[in-house]
Amino acid sequence: MKQFLDENFLLQNGTAQRLYHEFAKDLQIIDYHNHLPPQQIADNINFENLTQAWLYGDHYKWRAMRTNAVAEDYCTGSRSDYEKFEQWALTVPYTLRNPLYHWTHLELQRYFGITKILSGDTAREIYDEASEKLRTPEYSVQGLLAKMKVEYLCTTDDPADSLEHHIRMMTEDNMPFQVFPAFRPDKAMNVDNAASFNEYVGKIEAVTNSSITSYDEYLDALKQRHDFFTSINCKVSDHGLEQVYAEDYTDAEIRAIFGKIRGGKELDLQENLKFKSAMLVVFAQWDHEKSWTQQYHLGALRNNNIRMMRQLGPDTGWDSIGDFSQGKALAKFLGRLDSTDQLAKTILYNLNPADNEMMATMIGNFNDGDSGAKVQFGSAWWFLDQKDGMIKQINALSNMGLLSKFVGMLTDSRSFLSYPRHEYFRRILCNLFGEEIENGELPNDIPWTGKIISDICYYNAKDYFGF
Amino acid sequence: MKQFLDENFLLQNGTAQRLYHEFAKDLQIIDYHNHLPPQQIADNINFENLTQAWLYGDHYKWRAMRTNAVAEDYCTGSRSDYEKFEQWALTVPYTLRNPLYHWTHLELQRYFGITKILSGDTAREIYDEASEKLRTPEYSVQGLLAKMKVEYLCTTDDPADSLEHHIRMMTEDNMPFQVFPAFRPDKAMNVDNAASFNEYVGKIEAVTNSSITSYDEYLDALKQRHDFFTSINCKVSDHGLEQVYAEDYTDAEIRAIFGKIRGGKELDLQENLKFKSAMLVVFAQWDHEKSWTQQYHLGALRNNNIRMMRQLGPDTGWDSIGDFSQGKALAKFLGRLDSTDQLAKTILYNLNPADNEMMATMIGNFNDGDSGAKVQFGSAWWFLDQKDGMIKQINALSNMGLLSKFVGMLTDSRSFLSYPRHEYFRRILCNLFGEEIENGELPNDIPWTGKIISDICYYNAKDYFGF
Amino acid sequence: MKQFLDENFLLQNGTAQRLYHEFAKDLQIIDYHNHLPPQQIADNINFENLTQAWLYGDHYKWRAMRTNAVAEDYCTGSRSDYEKFEQWALTVPYTLRNPLYHWTHLELQRYFGITKILSGDTAREIYDEASEKLRTPEYSVQGLLAKMKVEYLCTTDDPADSLEHHIRMMTEDNMPFQVFPAFRPDKAMNVDNAASFNEYVGKIEAVTNSSITSYDEYLDALKQRHDFFTSINCKVSDHGLEQVYAEDYTDAEIRAIFGKIRGGKELDLQENLKFKSAMLVVFAQWDHEKSWTQQYHLGALRNNNIRMMRQLGPDTGWDSIGDFSQGKALAKFLGRLDSTDQLAKTILYNLNPADNEMMATMIGNFNDGDSGAKVQFGSAWWFLDQKDGMIKQINALSNMGLLSKFVGMLTDSRSFLSYPRHEYFRRILCNLFGEEIENGELPNDIPWTGKIISDICYYNAKDYFGF
Repeated sequence: MKQFLDENFLLQNGTAQRLYHEFAKDLQIIDYHNHLPPQQIADNINFENLTQAWLYGDHYKWRAMRTNAVAEDYCTGSRSDYEKFEQWALTVPYTLRNPLYHWTHLELQRYFGITKILSGDTAREIYDEASEKLRTPEYSVQGLLAKMKVEYLCTTDDPADSLEHHIRMMTEDNMPFQVFPAFRPDKAMNVDNAASFNEYVGKIEAVTNSSITSYDEYLDALKQRHDFFTSINCKVSDHGLEQVYAEDYTDAEIRAIFGKIRGGKELDLQENLKFKSAMLVVFAQWDHEKSWTQQYHLGALRNNNIRMMRQLGPDTGWDSIGDFSQGKALAKFLGRLDSTDQLAKTILYNLNPADNEMMATMIGNFNDGDSGAKVQFGSAWWFLDQKDGMIKQINALSNMGLLSKFVGMLTDSRSFLSYPRHEYFRRILCNLFGEEIENGELPNDIPWTGKIISDICYYNAKDYFGF
Repeated sequence: MKQFLDENFLLQNGTAQRLYHEFAKDLQIIDYHNHLPPQQIADNINFENLTQAWLYGDHYKWRAMRTNAVAEDYCTGSRSDYEKFEQWALTVPYTLRNPLYHWTHLELQRYFGITKILSGDTAREIYDEASEKLRTPEYSVQGLLAKMKVEYLCTTDDPADSLEHHIRMMTEDNMPFQVFPAFRPDKAMNVDNAASFNEYVGKIEAVTNSSITSYDEYLDALKQRHDFFTSINCKVSDHGLEQVYAEDYTDAEIRAIFGKIRGGKELDLQENLKFKSAMLVVFAQWDHEKSWTQQYHLGALRNNNIRMMRQLGPDTGWDSIGDFSQGKALAKFLGRLDSTDQLAKTILYNLNPADNEMMATMIGNFNDGDSGAKVQFGSAWWFLDQKDGMIKQINALSNMGLLSKFVGMLTDSRSFLSYPRHEYFRRILCNLFGEEIENGELPNDIPWTGKIISDICYYNAKDYFGF
Repeated sequence: MKQFLDENFLLQNGTAQRLYHEFAKDLQIIDYHNHLPPQQIADNINFENLTQAWLYGDHYKWRAMRTNAVAEDYCTGSRSDYEKFEQWALTVPYTLRNPLYHWTHLELQRYFGITKILSGDTAREIYDEASEKLRTPEYSVQGLLAKMKVEYLCTTDDPADSLEHHIRMMTEDNMPFQVFPAFRPDKAMNVDNAASFNEYVGKIEAVTNSSITSYDEYLDALKQRHDFFTSINCKVSDHGLEQVYAEDYTDAEIRAIFGKIRGGKELDLQENLKFKSAMLVVFAQWDHEKSWTQQYHLGALRNNNIRMMRQLGPDTGWDSIGDFSQGKALAKFLGRLDSTDQLAKTILYNLNPADNEMMATMIGNFNDGDSGAKVQFGSAWWFLDQKDGMIKQINALSNMGLLSKFVGMLTDSRSFLSYPRHEYFRRILCNLFGEEIENGELPNDIPWTGKIISDICYYNAKDYFGF
């Protein structure tokens, strides 16, 4: 009987253990996509307690609590921080086999040295011990990141964002890691509602001090923002979409469509899709010009609970996995950019694991000898960010591409306490190699296997993103 | 070498064995969805022989026999019961790795104490031994159910059904279990063919002693049936659909559509979908009013063999798994009901395992703290009702929801001899927990893990359905 | 620690080892679908070196090399054969966990007795040793096939092909195996481009010495080719399609559509689909008349890289897995043929593993007792032709059909060095049975299990294809 969460957690044989401890464990972390708030990092705040650090904004935990019949007031509502924590603690024993159970105890161990199992019985002592630590300088948010050996991280930012906190951090000497912005123009191409779109255009007007009456002016203004992001060391963009859009269109059509919605009229479906298709190409061309890496997160079905959407807004735990068709449009979109040699470094993330093999083969269509592993199959994302999901993604990539060239793990998290997910990934990766070596499916070549593992865990990303 | 089908069948380590034997094995069975014939239960019939109990109506066995080149005459045709059995016995050795191989031998052991392997060599003695037992009072259908510790079961019934046998059973004192009907209105919303639909409306007219010329009258009559089912202790509804329909519509449109088909005219596709969309909402609202649980079985592609459909009718083994798009309409349908707080307890079953993760995340969109685990991801169904399918369903639910809140297994069967499938499920469930405990992926907390297992196997269903 | 690639490679326990060595290892090979060049077989050529035998035409290796940043010149370009080989050798260590790593070393062992790991260090010696052998009579292409115990093989041929090399081989006495053509009429129904289609019709005119101005004449000419293929011992057809087409159409419509495109006009989408739907039915009817086996390879998304397509043409490594909807049209197509009793023996191959269960159940819809396992779920194909893909296909077929009736493995390869994939498949198959026997999930009945294994590896195919 192996002990729960011991030093060889998830490492089921000696080779796996050796690979992890010798080649993966001590590597620094490059977290090239997350949703951390730049202001909190720049201010190097301390959280007052474990609830603020751990439960605020964590829709994974809220979903589990709600399914465990915990009232909304204890999730996102007005209850005290400890009352919220206690409800979470009471829920944890019901999360057996959910990644939350692993993450929770891994995070308690790695950040706080707490090895107790969280439950109603231990809620008070764990809350007090962790909260007390969180109020010390060592546990400031920069301290938390440093403790996890984070070397680089990229936040997720709207083109209209001033990046003021990033600017502050550029000149900060004592930060033990670097923070870069990422350009996420989802709202800039969202023409589902004329009023919302025009409100957004107004923000771009304000931040660029310009007046936008035509599509060309809109592109000029957005391009200014793209340039500005570059000047603040931005090296990555990101898109969250149900599907990639790849309709045919002419520039004249897009100008007319922009005029229509800018005039306050709603677009029909075909206009909507053409506009989005055009914007995706434009952004991708700019990304290519700048040698950025562009990321596409595809396949989420969002805001399904209309009632709770009204009450709490987006990103509060009412999203799920969609079953959209992805292949044909994705091939067309990437092929269009490739045909004019304007395809930037690209990472494709799918939310539905049924698409893993399609994605793992799609990348190979655009990886020629000039570009090497330019197009990447992104790490298991969101609901898939767990053992089963990671193994499936790694196996699909292994079987249909070169795992050895993979840029590896990211947190995609809103929490400073999520960094053990890199460790989680590394353990799973080492175990896969270890099992195959012990089974005779791979040669017992530890140095070479170890080199590949350390590439996937750190060096490939370092090379790829050009940090 | 482990013995085939011994007491630790499917339990690959000591912890799994302990969990099963201490916490799962002896629990009673709640079979909340099956297709057993109410009359046979009410009459407490005895089958004359093993063929009648085991092969009549079993399209799983027929499919295997046909693929093994057994002529139709031995499946559904005019051959003697023993001749049919012999062909099945000759087929069994060819079903290695198919769930039929496990089910067959588990059923022979559990009901009849027969541990021999079924084949041509053992056909005669097994047939004689089992058939002789089947003719004894202990092996009446009520005896068979009692032997398996069935406590509650729900059949599947058309709104036009008189429920006469259920009514008889309501006043039966000596039955060791309770039998409830389930409301399955598939035909009531099937407007694919005007003649068939009107024939069905005629049945509803007859059973409600009413005349139906308008949509409102149709709803009144169906509502009478829904009320009547409630009076006979019905607590669940069920729907078998390729996809959930969630078109936009107005009541005026639906009234006009009903008028058109009631007048004998065929509907066009859009009318068809609107009508089905409207009916699904109506039924769901009624289910909510009555605090029933509604079940949706989604994704079967039925009656594909036109020639055999003509010859044998539906449900004779010519159906398969479809690859319909499910996510967006399902979210819209459930969201529509939730937005007016009319979403009843709901169980979603998918037939295509590629949809597992979509389904396992969909349920979380509508499980708020008021409702707890109100929307459930249903147990592996039909073709998926085997080890691989169950493991995938359990893992998807584990990773994306709370397995601990799962209402667990059902037979969905037409046979009184299918009840060891509950045992099969319980063994697989215990083995998953046992493996993770022994691997150090879960704490070695047997009492708590055991409690969760017994919840999934019995107590969650008992609470959920309100039996 | 098991040795890499020893005699018990992929066989993880004693039962698996016994099953493989006693029942599978020594069986001959029936390779019923591949892309070997008939001329090379007929001429019994020798390759000059390992690059020509192994890398020419192998888009699997090219994709890996390109992802490893090897320039195109070393893949399909003008570099010397050794320079190309060296780049491949340098890439091999980066293919850990990709099937190429297994295939490479299995092929070096089985054909050349080379047990060294291929890398930059061993490139020269391995190249020299293998190339020297390839120039000896024992290593002629017929020798290579004989060494692998190939008994029958089917190439893939266009209806316009003269089959001259097949004709030569029919009268060749000393060949240790038989070579049959396969009828692959993809171009004959490809009406996506009027000019290309008419160019193709011109080829059919030439080879049939006829003039084709109408659909009826076109069918007459194609039927002549079908008859001619039969006379050269053709027993299989093959189709490579994104999806099966099953639109409704009338003969009059198809005649008009043919007239339109034959007149040089492009078809609209509906005409295109109707024409393809009609042609698929015609070909299938002919296949049924001749008692051929028809194969459908479904779901590839081809030629995605427009730039490289222009440069290198098709089949050079720019294809991927699509996510097309398959179920409904497939059921309609097969049902249409079955309803007139014109459904030939049929093998369905899916490229997207998300469709495995749909496919594995689809076949059962058309396997009645007269036909037995007439419709087969084809072996894991292309990107799926690896351990994970094979296991998933075998498991889906096991759970939803009769694995025991499976016609088993084929290479689908363009290379004479790919035949160890049959061994690979056999080892994986034996390991699955071995594991379940040792776990107590199957009885420890070695003779019966061995019989089923040898059926799947050889005897089923022999019976099925009627060689």
